[in-house]
Amino acid sequence: MINGERRIPRPLRWGMVGGGRTGQVGYKHRTGALRDGTYRLVAGAFDLDAARGRDFGVNLGVEASRCYATYQELIAGEAGREDGVEVVSVATPNFTHYEITRALLEAGFHVICEKPLFFTVAECDEIAALAASKNLIVGVTYGFTGHPMVHQMAAMVARGMLGEIRLVDMAYTHGFNAGDDTGAPEAVVWRTNPRTAGPTFVLGDIGTHLYYLSEVVLPHLKVEKLLCDRKAFIPSRAPLEDHATVLMHYDNGARARLWVSSVDAGNMGSQRYRFTGSKASVAWSDSHPDQIVYQVQGEPERILHHGMPYLEEESLAADRMGALHTEGLGDSWANIYLWIAQAIAAADAGDRAFLETHHYPGIHAGTEGVRWLENCVRSADSGAAWVDFE
Amino acid sequence: MINGERRIPRPLRWGMVGGGRTGQVGYKHRTGALRDGTYRLVAGAFDLDAARGRDFGVNLGVEASRCYATYQELIAGEAGREDGVEVVSVATPNFTHYEITRALLEAGFHVICEKPLFFTVAECDEIAALAASKNLIVGVTYGFTGHPMVHQMAAMVARGMLGEIRLVDMAYTHGFNAGDDTGAPEAVVWRTNPRTAGPTFVLGDIGTHLYYLSEVVLPHLKVEKLLCDRKAFIPSRAPLEDHATVLMHYDNGARARLWVSSVDAGNMGSQRYRFTGSKASVAWSDSHPDQIVYQVQGEPERILHHGMPYLEEESLAADRMGALHTEGLGDSWANIYLWIAQAIAAADAGDRAFLETHHYPGIHAGTEGVRWLENCVRSADSGAAWVDFE
Amino acid sequence: MINGERRIPRPLRWGMVGGGRTGQVGYKHRTGALRDGTYRLVAGAFDLDAARGRDFGVNLGVEASRCYATYQELIAGEAGREDGVEVVSVATPNFTHYEITRALLEAGFHVICEKPLFFTVAECDEIAALAASKNLIVGVTYGFTGHPMVHQMAAMVARGMLGEIRLVDMAYTHGFNAGDDTGAPEAVVWRTNPRTAGPTFVLGDIGTHLYYLSEVVLPHLKVEKLLCDRKAFIPSRAPLEDHATVLMHYDNGARARLWVSSVDAGNMGSQRYRFTGSKASVAWSDSHPDQIVYQVQGEPERILHHGMPYLEEESLAADRMGALHTEGLGDSWANIYLWIAQAIAAADAGDRAFLETHHYPGIHAGTEGVRWLENCVRSADSGAAWVDFE
Amino acid sequence: MINGERRIPRPLRWGMVGGGRTGQVGYKHRTGALRDGTYRLVAGAFDLDAARGRDFGVNLGVEASRCYATYQELIAGEAGREDGVEVVSVATPNFTHYEITRALLEAGFHVICEKPLFFTVAECDEIAALAASKNLIVGVTYGFTGHPMVHQMAAMVARGMLGEIRLVDMAYTHGFNAGDDTGAPEAVVWRTNPRTAGPTFVLGDIGTHLYYLSEVVLPHLKVEKLLCDRKAFIPSRAPLEDHATVLMHYDNGARARLWVSSVDAGNMGSQRYRFTGSKASVAWSDSHPDQIVYQVQGEPERILHHGMPYLEEESLAADRMGALHTEGLGDSWANIYLWIAQAIAAADAGDRAFLETHHYPGIHAGTEGVRWLENCVRSADSGAAWVDFE
Repeated sequence: MINGERRIPRPLRWGMVGGGRTGQVGYKHRTGALRDGTYRLVAGAFDLDAARGRDFGVNLGVEASRCYATYQELIAGEAGREDGVEVVSVATPNFTHYEITRALLEAGFHVICEKPLFFTVAECDEIAALAASKNLIVGVTYGFTGHPMVHQMAAMVARGMLGEIRLVDMAYTHGFNAGDDTGAPEAVVWRTNPRTAGPTFVLGDIGTHLYYLSEVVLPHLKVEKLLCDRKAFIPSRAPLEDHATVLMHYDNGARARLWVSSVDAGNMGSQRYRFTGSKASVAWSDSHPDQIVYQVQGEPERILHHGMPYLEEESLAADRMGALHTEGLGDSWANIYLWIAQAIAAADAGDRAFLETHHYPGIHAGTEGVRWLENCVRSADSGAAWVDFE
Repeated sequence: MINGERRIPRPLRWGMVGGGRTGQVGYKHRTGALRDGTYRLVAGAFDLDAARGRDFGVNLGVEASRCYATYQELIAGEAGREDGVEVVSVATPNFTHYEITRALLEAGFHVICEKPLFFTVAECDEIAALAASKNLIVGVTYGFTGHPMVHQMAAMVARGMLGEIRLVDMAYTHGFNAGDDTGAPEAVVWRTNPRTAGPTFVLGDIGTHLYYLSEVVLPHLKVEKLLCDRKAFIPSRAPLEDHATVLMHYDNGARARLWVSSVDAGNMGSQRYRFTGSKASVAWSDSHPDQIVYQVQGEPERILHHGMPYLEEESLAADRMGALHTEGLGDSWANIYLWIAQAIAAADAGDRAFLETHHYPGIHAGTEGVRWLENCVRSADSGAAWVDFE
Repeated sequence: MINGERRIPRPLRWGMVGGGRTGQVGYKHRTGALRDGTYRLVAGAFDLDAARGRDFGVNLGVEASRCYATYQELIAGEAGREDGVEVVSVATPNFTHYEITRALLEAGFHVICEKPLFFTVAECDEIAALAASKNLIVGVTYGFTGHPMVHQMAAMVARGMLGEIRLVDMAYTHGFNAGDDTGAPEAVVWRTNPRTAGPTFVLGDIGTHLYYLSEVVLPHLKVEKLLCDRKAFIPSRAPLEDHATVLMHYDNGARARLWVSSVDAGNMGSQRYRFTGSKASVAWSDSHPDQIVYQVQGEPERILHHGMPYLEEESLAADRMGALHTEGLGDSWANIYLWIAQAIAAADAGDRAFLETHHYPGIHAGTEGVRWLENCVRSADSGAAWVDFE
Repeated sequence: MINGERRIPRPLRWGMVGGGRTGQVGYKHRTGALRDGTYRLVAGAFDLDAARGRDFGVNLGVEASRCYATYQELIAGEAGREDGVEVVSVATPNFTHYEITRALLEAGFHVICEKPLFFTVAECDEIAALAASKNLIVGVTYGFTGHPMVHQMAAMVARGMLGEIRLVDMAYTHGFNAGDDTGAPEAVVWRTNPRTAGPTFVLGDIGTHLYYLSEVVLPHLKVEKLLCDRKAFIPSRAPLEDHATVLMHYDNGARARLWVSSVDAGNMGSQRYRFTGSKASVAWSDSHPDQIVYQVQGEPERILHHGMPYLEEESLAADRMGALHTEGLGDSWANIYLWIAQAIAAADAGDRAFLETHHYPGIHAGTEGVRWLENCVRSADSGAAWVDFE
């Protein structure tokens, strides 16, 4: 159970690029990073509007002189300081992730970046090599995988409680883009333009969450073949998609289906997962993240609640509020930020043994998400045909 | 609202082939047929074990002399009687549907047959022609489509309350065949053998329910292309499948996905449907059949309950118990049996006008189900490839 | 499992008083009675409007000559016939139950009567003695207690699976009378007038269902003390109540609370029950009658589904549709009517041994409901004070 | 929407008494206080075990020299410092609240105290006078009332969307004390002893949450009469209670019932609230805090989700994560801590106008909770009799 005691030797000096007042994503980073005393926010380039960004940063408690106009200025201003930032989060549109991450790494900072990480696997590989060469960590904010019940599912799979995995069913659909984009906010505009969003819209924006979570729960399975059928119901979004279905065959013979959509009008269910084995299934939704449904064929359905002593240790270790007290998405982000901080501290201390077994969403996870997107696009652009997963 | 008053001039004299003591399906037919005074059970060939069948029939109130050993004897015994059966239900394994239905029609009886109707569309077309030539009705027991809330969804779609249909999501999965078939009951044995089940297992056994219900709700849409990925997780079931995923493209550009499985260990949710339009969605499950969820993008979710005055007239017309009082699958079957009886009475009276607008699952619905199965198999056997719907 | 085979030697000849076209209750009786071949509807006095009642009865398949204008005519017409009715259901307003039941019993008919049975325990006792003296059965249509999962709960309590019972929580609330009664239908008018409804409105109309079900589940407990706080939020309903809370102390120290209301605006949950013991709880609602929630302290919550082999035999014996196939209120009524028919057949056959152990809602259950109402009213009229249960 | 920008001029220097490593409550305070940059934890007397408390505090980032052995030492050490604490949270057993709060106030610190506040209304009144005389704030951690949907309900009531309030139904029950207290943890031991817990167990421990939330939603109603029936199912807890039912009459004629229990074996539902007016109802549970059910009689049920534009401004103002992203109990605590901080800043600035309209759980709310407990005990000790609310 996590009670806010610090798990690393001292707080990390932390900065942000993006995440300013006009967007929603920045608060998720901050509420995740700041509740445990693990990070201290000391610098930022929060906003394209420099004055607004400075005003905002000051309101967050950052010194005005360390509220920079651009990420380049942030690097210039912080790189030389004794008390300069050590790790910087990148909460900007997709097309800037690669260049900002590269610049930050080159300046010697650890990086925590939004997903989808970059546009291509080649970029990911290059960044991975750069980070490795400089002993730096790149964390990726797959923010839903800090929930304790996700790790309960993973532990149950690992211990064979489901039997051999056969079926994987995943969906992340909503309807907030059911209408056309006339007058849409900036966050929609850049996400639906290939220049700024990259090769996908909903596949990258929400589908990568599904795919990463499935990797957390099923680390032993590999995708062999994949089919992706995508479509823009709002034509202006083409060639990007606002709806996609992906079918996957795993190397053990299991079958998966995955659905992402931002035109599923009225759906407030967010993400839903179901993992079915030869003996039993588990199901979870981020909209009620504190419970899983565990169904053994031929037995009563079971609902397992977070924080209860009957859970696996991996789940209890990630618990913050205790049974009966609800956890929210912020608690999940707090775990992600904590686990990344532990990786950073270990890298700084040269503790390779720790890093080899420590679980957190890093450059590998980010790369696999981009690889999955590349395969999806290759299938979709071949007429929604089956492709071997490369 | 249905209160048991007879909707046809007089009760129909009814017989059954199959549906005896050792199976579960016969009671569904009887509880559907017998609660309104629409049918009177007067004859049957209930069981392959003639003595057991007679004992059973007598316990149901059928005269011993009209409890026959075979369907041939039933035809022989009833065809000449003044008070002989007028309509016969066929509740036997799939491979017998065609021959029994043909024989019954040739003997001049209306027929009510289990799904999947026959093995091929060619058989369906032949039977349709035979029935038409003799002015006889063939009803098909798609027993889930009598629920009032199914017709609520259809009425809402028809009135444009969802906007243009974009997404269809359907699933019927359970785990009762998650284990292998060692010692399996007869009902599983014949369903997993292509000789007795026909070209499919779960696609025909449960998938046709999904497809027919989608036709009821979306009568204006046609499938253009289809992809079916099927698999037998229990190898002895091959070439039939215990799991299948079907993707479909409709002629208006809508996308559908459909999932059927009998190896979804522990799942007790049965059927789930979601129809999404450009403005709103509706969702229904047969496990809580008295309600639908109606979600207009940007508005609170709404739960609509059966029997309430705010519903569309088509739903209220099919209601039996009234608001707050639960309806079950038997009530749905009762509606199906009633609607088929009304078709029979109209056919007998030569009322073509009634038949042209009267909604019930007849030979056309049965044929379309078989056509859908043929397309699924063609796709699956081509490596789960896209095929044009023929 | 019930499959429609007859459980009694021959069908009972059945008549109805009330239950005509303009009300909802009659269909519940008929759909319950007619699906198993246990009863045959042969006579009725269905309606205060004799012509409408005859037209209605004929539509139900009753001979016009046996559609009577009044219950007195029904008695006169049927009493002398060789093929006259044997059992008559009384589905009329409360104030007529006593006189009609008495007249029917005196004429030698078994009776099945709506609840609340009569106005006073004294009337109940008189009728019980009359029925006993003539070897006749009086059944009471507590129509919700035929659900298999109710008997699952009773079996679990009996087998000690909950431990010692401590807490009972029951509610039956809806909002259909949230507005005033201007222009209310006849069914509301008579229920809110003490002359026609008796000493209570919602306590008798819906509260007796709660109390009887608690007796079914907890037959070993006796109420020692009771407090009833009732109120008419719509003043015209006073001195009757449209809302009441009842607290009860049982002889083992358990505590119960019970809530009935017809002004709980918008509530569509109908009935909810929770029985808590020292080890575990069970909960059930008639709005999803096919499942119970079983909660053992310190273990995952369990949801038990009807028709599954893991259930107790008492539940499976009452099952009609099988697992995954929903049962509705009509199935529950069918069980109640079946169990009463078995009592009638046993009484006719002089089988006292059967009657001693056979479970069905009879005159005792009806009497206990009226006794509970008398205690509630006594408490309420004493300023919602505690009273010893008498 | 709250995005972590500071709402007060500068962070408050904050200390804690209690809330150390061995309990669960401290983290709730810290995760609530620390995510917005509103408070900085600079001192504490975290633990009765001074060494453990110091080790713990250091791990939280507090200087070792400001980790005190007792609250007296904390006061002595901090009172004279330029940078000493300004506000101190009291997260200790009930019997210490009064003396610690009084000492802190006398030393000139603002106080944030756990509930139930003190043992008697007299103590509350004395402390209120003391705080007022020194221009200090006393906040009370009714930690569930920061959820945005609580304020949605309050706004809907205030705007008449429910009509005149008639019925209030509240429950907070769990089963964690279903067994006896052999080997129980310290947190149970002190809660079940009147010397350390005060005059109640579950009424104070969890019932005050219900009562305060009802005051937030229904500020215009006053309790006129009350009846409390309490019991210790585990005899060693007497005279305190592990179960209680409270009935209340409001001054507008509304009726309330409230249920608290820690022996409701297996219940994981935590708190449930339902407020019913003449037109509609709203219902909320802290176990799924992001939604309310809004039921207008005669219309479809509506589910309202947090963060959606259709909500009332009071709800949106308290939102942190945005629609589709779950909020947890920590987010609610963060709001409570923020609102108390705003009161403190206003008090320090002498901004009486702000304080007059600013909503937060202060000394008045704490006092009313204790008053309610006194009335409950008076009723319970009079044989669960009705008492006028004093």
